[in-house]
Amino acid sequence: MSPVTLAEIVAALGGELFGDATLPISRLAPLDRADPAALSFLANPRYAAQLATTQAAAVIVAPALREAAAARGAVIVTADPYLYFARLTQWWAARTRRRAVAGVHPSAVIGAGVRLHPSASIGAFAVIDDGTEIGADAVIGPHSHIGADAFVGAGTRFGGRVTLGDACRIGARGIVHAGVVIGADGFGFAPQALDAGGRWEKIEQLGAVRIGDDVEIGANTCIDRGALDDTVIDEGVKLDNLIQVGHNVRIGAHCAMAGCVGIAGSAKIGRHCTVGGGAIILGHLELVDHVHITAATVITRSILKAGQYSGLFPFDDNASWEKNAATLRQLHSLRERLRALEKKS
Amino acid sequence: MSPVTLAEIVAALGGELFGDATLPISRLAPLDRADPAALSFLANPRYAAQLATTQAAAVIVAPALREAAAARGAVIVTADPYLYFARLTQWWAARTRRRAVAGVHPSAVIGAGVRLHPSASIGAFAVIDDGTEIGADAVIGPHSHIGADAFVGAGTRFGGRVTLGDACRIGARGIVHAGVVIGADGFGFAPQALDAGGRWEKIEQLGAVRIGDDVEIGANTCIDRGALDDTVIDEGVKLDNLIQVGHNVRIGAHCAMAGCVGIAGSAKIGRHCTVGGGAIILGHLELVDHVHITAATVITRSILKAGQYSGLFPFDDNASWEKNAATLRQLHSLRERLRALEKKS
Amino acid sequence: MSPVTLAEIVAALGGELFGDATLPISRLAPLDRADPAALSFLANPRYAAQLATTQAAAVIVAPALREAAAARGAVIVTADPYLYFARLTQWWAARTRRRAVAGVHPSAVIGAGVRLHPSASIGAFAVIDDGTEIGADAVIGPHSHIGADAFVGAGTRFGGRVTLGDACRIGARGIVHAGVVIGADGFGFAPQALDAGGRWEKIEQLGAVRIGDDVEIGANTCIDRGALDDTVIDEGVKLDNLIQVGHNVRIGAHCAMAGCVGIAGSAKIGRHCTVGGGAIILGHLELVDHVHITAATVITRSILKAGQYSGLFPFDDNASWEKNAATLRQLHSLRERLRALEKKS
Repeated sequence: MSPVTLAEIVAALGGELFGDATLPISRLAPLDRADPAALSFLANPRYAAQLATTQAAAVIVAPALREAAAARGAVIVTADPYLYFARLTQWWAARTRRRAVAGVHPSAVIGAGVRLHPSASIGAFAVIDDGTEIGADAVIGPHSHIGADAFVGAGTRFGGRVTLGDACRIGARGIVHAGVVIGADGFGFAPQALDAGGRWEKIEQLGAVRIGDDVEIGANTCIDRGALDDTVIDEGVKLDNLIQVGHNVRIGAHCAMAGCVGIAGSAKIGRHCTVGGGAIILGHLELVDHVHITAATVITRSILKAGQYSGLFPFDDNASWEKNAATLRQLHSLRERLRALEKKS
Repeated sequence: MSPVTLAEIVAALGGELFGDATLPISRLAPLDRADPAALSFLANPRYAAQLATTQAAAVIVAPALREAAAARGAVIVTADPYLYFARLTQWWAARTRRRAVAGVHPSAVIGAGVRLHPSASIGAFAVIDDGTEIGADAVIGPHSHIGADAFVGAGTRFGGRVTLGDACRIGARGIVHAGVVIGADGFGFAPQALDAGGRWEKIEQLGAVRIGDDVEIGANTCIDRGALDDTVIDEGVKLDNLIQVGHNVRIGAHCAMAGCVGIAGSAKIGRHCTVGGGAIILGHLELVDHVHITAATVITRSILKAGQYSGLFPFDDNASWEKNAATLRQLHSLRERLRALEKKS
Repeated sequence: MSPVTLAEIVAALGGELFGDATLPISRLAPLDRADPAALSFLANPRYAAQLATTQAAAVIVAPALREAAAARGAVIVTADPYLYFARLTQWWAARTRRRAVAGVHPSAVIGAGVRLHPSASIGAFAVIDDGTEIGADAVIGPHSHIGADAFVGAGTRFGGRVTLGDACRIGARGIVHAGVVIGADGFGFAPQALDAGGRWEKIEQLGAVRIGDDVEIGANTCIDRGALDDTVIDEGVKLDNLIQVGHNVRIGAHCAMAGCVGIAGSAKIGRHCTVGGGAIILGHLELVDHVHITAATVITRSILKAGQYSGLFPFDDNASWEKNAATLRQLHSLRERLRALEKKS
């Protein structure tokens, strides 16, 4: 891939350029690993000292750091360097990545009444069942399976072997990574009485999954279909890998959740929430907008006030942990003993 | 799909009908979202007040609520409304869902000596290796891979891209959702001494997986093959999505486990147990029948008495949690200080 | 499969044989389930009492147990019986398992400029994109998708439906189980200011994944590509099922991690570390060599000293847990009250 000049980058993405506009840029790199062909960025002022030592051809900085950065060479000044960097990576990827070829791979199996936009790309061994619609510029990766009467919006890209179940819908400009399963059955059973056998009687899941625009879903994540109503993921939601979203969950717009999160059935999560890796949200709870859950925290009741919530056991060297954990099992009685002492004193 | 009458429903599923038997039902819905074309149900007496406000055409209730329900319109009375509702969803799905077509999709790759029942349905791009047997009315979804000398019982349905490894068996009437991997290698290694390199020497996993009848397995769940003996899942077990079942685990009949559970190798779990989402059961433990594990709990020793067991850190606003968590690391010394005070007083 | 004699086993694997070298061995089995056609092993002296009762044809033991074992029949003596057993399983599997057939299945789709070693085996419906290289004796399972410009080393075996992304590399003698996704995008977004909409701006992930030799990766595990640099898994690492490895993580040689572990972005883990099932390691942390993390522990800061670290809430019967957990939320104030008492006394 031939290099680009700083001038080309600023022409495409904006920002104020100081220094040699003809400098050729061959790669993007963090400050501490940049070479003289790299463009780097300084998003966190904590790392400002790296300006003095970086080998980067140029650095993207906020206005406050313009002078410090310009002292060492070319600089792009912008209000939010991290956001600028994000858009730069998008521009870079658009330049360098292979584009999916429009059309249907000859091996794909396309059902009856499927409406494929001619600009969509359907990969090898993809299976698209009857009555489904695939929008303009959508990309369906190899080995993907789109059920019947489903919908994939314009510009949405599926990696390889994605499953989108019957009647499930995803909006425009989404990204769904390999191995994702959207629309498997929610986990619903009615318990038979134990004296009648204690079997679990399946509740067929008659709802679907509806996903808004600009949603990204990480590898091997699962979003179950609803029992009667739909499971709903609103626009702009970003889900990492290996997340479980139970039936009839609703995730509000612009939430972001890290890997290995589990959301049990019918939880309702507000807008602009974040959930750290491995956290669990129990079923039928409600979280209002702007709730932030720390990694590995288990949410056991609704949260009606915005803020940060946590609940993880602090780790320690094993011996210290063992002593404290053992004492934890006597905590309630310690409190009683403390009370008794207080009364005495 | 044309509506059905209440009379047809009661003819198929039983229950005592009060009110207009000719009412047309177009959908099933929860009380609070039902419209006049919907049949709803009241399983939890806590929601009895919704009877007054629901728009449902008719409601399924227990005998104790017959009068309250009949006051507002048609009603189906049955001893266990939730169980009735479950069977109703099954009947409904059987009416409305596309049925898999019997026969082998022309793209499927079928090995030597494979015995396929003529009523079985083998999807596009499925691969079935030598010597395997697929029972009557079984459905193997697209992109599934059944290893050699495996067995799929009558009526068992695999979603798309399910893996069933060599020599693994699943009984009748099972449901296996997309992305499930049954029969990958268990995680077994012998550690080399550190001074010899500290490598992990693979223990080849020579056992298989045996799954009983009426088992449901959620999307992207993994059940490993045994090291020498088999991993065994007994009849009627229900596993949600993204569960890990290690090698040589045994799960007793009619257990149910929610998403993201992990069961380490050689754990032995009794019958009729339930495990909440994200719980972990360590290896080589035994749980007797009727043990119930709360979500996100880590089971570190065997449980020999039926009951509910828990162990999760209560979450709090971040500031409160930080104070308590920090103090937790001094808990053992607090106990010592309390003791000293008690001696003094 | 016809049985082998003890003599053949010792000829292949070493060890000192005492007793009848012509004994036919038809299977490997644990001591307590061995029959007279089985070879068993005693790795843990705790189980030495089983020597008296096992039905095994012969037992593999350490020198210290030679006499006890020989008293009951044939015995193979070796310095490390567990390591011997591991190698025995490998030898056994090599004898008994079907070998992948060299060559490309006619249904596979092979891109331009792909270099396939003639001894490699490419399964049904595999897709290999342009410019990729597959080494000698490598096995690519059915429905696998290897991106462009990727590399699979000699002897590495992929199960069915493995994804290896563009430009990602794995060394020699690896084992990658079904459903694994290597090289999906890392989870990287720049947050827009809330008053500008609070959207998440995607940071395109321009790095790749580099995996060393002798690495095993369990079913449905995900390893994300790096943002700018690569995610790196060093030689000899063993990962169990359903593990999440974030972008730019580095895992040092000969680490082993159990199922359901999550490693957040840019964590750097030393050599010879072990991580128990369900543990979480937060991002940007560093763990030195020989750190051992207990199952379900959450690592929230760097660990600079080798050793065992833990942090899990001890489970209890539900009623006891509830009392202790409730008190836990007052722990900090209990400490204050204790302090007050101490001052008084």
